[in-house]
Amino acid sequence: MDKDDLLRRLRRVEGQVRGVAQMVEGDRYCIDVLTQIAAATRALQGVAVGLFDDHLRHCVADAVAAGGGDAQVKLTEATAAVERLLKS
Amino acid sequence: MDKDDLLRRLRRVEGQVRGVAQMVEGDRYCIDVLTQIAAATRALQGVAVGLFDDHLRHCVADAVAAGGGDAQVKLTEATAAVERLLKS
Amino acid sequence: MDKDDLLRRLRRVEGQVRGVAQMVEGDRYCIDVLTQIAAATRALQGVAVGLFDDHLRHCVADAVAAGGGDAQVKLTEATAAVERLLKS
Amino acid sequence: MDKDDLLRRLRRVEGQVRGVAQMVEGDRYCIDVLTQIAAATRALQGVAVGLFDDHLRHCVADAVAAGGGDAQVKLTEATAAVERLLKS
Repeated sequence: MDKDDLLRRLRRVEGQVRGVAQMVEGDRYCIDVLTQIAAATRALQGVAVGLFDDHLRHCVADAVAAGGGDAQVKLTEATAAVERLLKS
Repeated sequence: MDKDDLLRRLRRVEGQVRGVAQMVEGDRYCIDVLTQIAAATRALQGVAVGLFDDHLRHCVADAVAAGGGDAQVKLTEATAAVERLLKS
Repeated sequence: MDKDDLLRRLRRVEGQVRGVAQMVEGDRYCIDVLTQIAAATRALQGVAVGLFDDHLRHCVADAVAAGGGDAQVKLTEATAAVERLLKS
Repeated sequence: MDKDDLLRRLRRVEGQVRGVAQMVEGDRYCIDVLTQIAAATRALQGVAVGLFDDHLRHCVADAVAAGGGDAQVKLTEATAAVERLLKS
């Protein structure tokens, strides 16, 4: 997932959230609105996974390959990011 | 959580997602972007909980109070919506 | 999902968690252990959905049909339970 | 989180799941059972985060430091594990 792909996906999520607001505005059936919120959430998580993969493969791997203290910082940050995503 | 409150929250989520796109665009540090995605996801789940509460308290409770087959349909739909949210 | 079915599923989840412990004990590959933890989590969420459905269909629906203040308490509790599950 | 700590936590989760089964068996109030299921799920996710951290810091970092094709395999596996946990 490269930068263009990430931006395309994020624009799609933004559109999904705007669509949810229009459904609420138009008094659409709650269950249908909830289905769209679930879809937007999944799409957002998909972006997070893509970003995480990219971060692991570049920033974290580069720091590990270079060795030194930065590698430990990057590894700790990566786990903390996963923890935050799991709690969201 | 009334309609105005839901719309305000959704507009805020839309802004958060747009902010995430700007962070990606500006090559901001991945971990910071992931933190914002986790925040947007939590905000979206908060909207879902508010909508679900409203739906339960009105549509589902009204159908149950009226009795008849529609109550069963509404109860089944409510559980299915929870299941979709849990999987998202 | 009746009581026997819930108990059967919970015993299966208990076995899955014990299996995960045995994998850790036997130094099995972390990724395989994580796959089993994801499966146990999904199974646990499935039990929660089944219980929630049952609770909605009986306790909540009965309180709503009876009317009065208990209905509001039960509806508030149901939403709060969904919120806790979403955050777990 | 070392092996002993992981095993202690997993035994606690196993006990929590058994406790949930006893609550269902004893017809305890559904909402209280759901609260316990949410707690067991969170505990299980905590174990997953601990294992993931350990895996990243050892298996993945070692493969990256050694270079070669195995590093790519390990990085791909790590992201896939995060994706499975997020979907569970």
